[in-house]
Amino acid sequence: MSEASDYTYVIKIGGNIIDNELRLHQFLAQFAKIESRKVLVHGGGKLATQLAGKLNLPQQMVEGRRITDAETLKLVTMVYAGLINKTVVAQLQAHGCNAAGFSGADGNLIQAHKRVVKDGKDYGFAGDIDRVNAGFLSQLINKGVVPVLAPITHDRKGQLLNTNADTITNETASALSTIHPVRIIYVFEMPGVMSDPSDADSVIPEIGFEKFKSLQAAGTISGGMIPKLDNAFAALAAGVEQVLIGQAEDLEDILKGTKGTRIIHD
Amino acid sequence: MSEASDYTYVIKIGGNIIDNELRLHQFLAQFAKIESRKVLVHGGGKLATQLAGKLNLPQQMVEGRRITDAETLKLVTMVYAGLINKTVVAQLQAHGCNAAGFSGADGNLIQAHKRVVKDGKDYGFAGDIDRVNAGFLSQLINKGVVPVLAPITHDRKGQLLNTNADTITNETASALSTIHPVRIIYVFEMPGVMSDPSDADSVIPEIGFEKFKSLQAAGTISGGMIPKLDNAFAALAAGVEQVLIGQAEDLEDILKGTKGTRIIHD
Repeated sequence: MSEASDYTYVIKIGGNIIDNELRLHQFLAQFAKIESRKVLVHGGGKLATQLAGKLNLPQQMVEGRRITDAETLKLVTMVYAGLINKTVVAQLQAHGCNAAGFSGADGNLIQAHKRVVKDGKDYGFAGDIDRVNAGFLSQLINKGVVPVLAPITHDRKGQLLNTNADTITNETASALSTIHPVRIIYVFEMPGVMSDPSDADSVIPEIGFEKFKSLQAAGTISGGMIPKLDNAFAALAAGVEQVLIGQAEDLEDILKGTKGTRIIHD
Repeated sequence: MSEASDYTYVIKIGGNIIDNELRLHQFLAQFAKIESRKVLVHGGGKLATQLAGKLNLPQQMVEGRRITDAETLKLVTMVYAGLINKTVVAQLQAHGCNAAGFSGADGNLIQAHKRVVKDGKDYGFAGDIDRVNAGFLSQLINKGVVPVLAPITHDRKGQLLNTNADTITNETASALSTIHPVRIIYVFEMPGVMSDPSDADSVIPEIGFEKFKSLQAAGTISGGMIPKLDNAFAALAAGVEQVLIGQAEDLEDILKGTKGTRIIHD
């Protein structure tokens, strides 16, 4: 196995970290120390929903997913690309990490199109990604800049779009992998993929596709873990070398391979 | 006189353009066409105040200036670095201009310190600039990127700060002028410095410091124009080659030198 520094790491933090000031602070301190090439992708957290509540802006949902109408798009652009992105960047700068925040519109980093209405389901200004500008991203990384990506893209016709942060992570990692070997780390609320969700010691250290399918057939992996693993294997299929899953607090150990779950090519 | 393309232009738009969708759109279409090296700096406009009203967030003022308390800082970070910055960037991208938006925290572009409390006046999280990272800015410009700067800076200790956009313009232009000759364009609501404010045809095409002082002594230039011109001459003193002042709609003609006022070295 190569040294960790041979890889570009695309690391995604979700709302459960962003919403907790202390956890975010601890995570960013660890993230800043990583010496490899790295990109941070952040989701949205509860801030946008809270602000929508304060503004009496009703949030429409379709099958559990938020509909991005014009006012909601303004709100998520403010919260994701403004408040969260700049707060994270300023904290990383304080840790000596030369972070710079970007939406997909900046430098045309992530071009998308408005999601097509299908079976009458209209998600509004939700963006499906067409292309990641890996060249510009890689130039920034080569200059020692650590890109911090907010889950907002654009269509290059002047329209900003709300885009899922996991999708941004996979597409960015896949595009960067044409230039340099890439690993993804999905940081979430559990210590890894567990054979017994009630037992923190039951983390499965390594899963290939065949093992995943047999664990799924046996019912060992079920529920919310299935889409996460489907997503991880999709990243591998798109050129990513490994996907690591684990808890924010364990970032250093996940990088060393002593904690979390590695999703690998068979 | 050198050709316009020999200069880096630092162009500042104020709230009166940002608050008017049509004027902003027309200005950005003209800005996109400029072939020289260029940087856009934007102010805040009324959006932050409007949002503060909707959120019932009282805005404290000291001698006509907004006090940036912790909640107001979040608000201006959202509105300036999020909504306005990304809206401008997405529109420029639609015009084929490879814009990328930055706060002062991004890439440590503009480092500042919290304004010192003096004579009991506490402006809260207002930032006074210590240093502009002209090297990174210039690298971006050399790559064909057009930086769009939001009036938010940081102290490199994790604190974001609210900073006057005119000050950002002057300091950025001054720092860039150590690398490449720089001109500033201040776009505002009048066609230039006028000898008769009620007569649009009375624009004074060119003003040096001695002429400014004599026009001021004669009462020809007065009121709100004085601080604007003081600011322009401060930029010249800090290394900027020329400061141009005029109306957003006239941007092309200001660049050609056929409209607006040129503030020049004596």
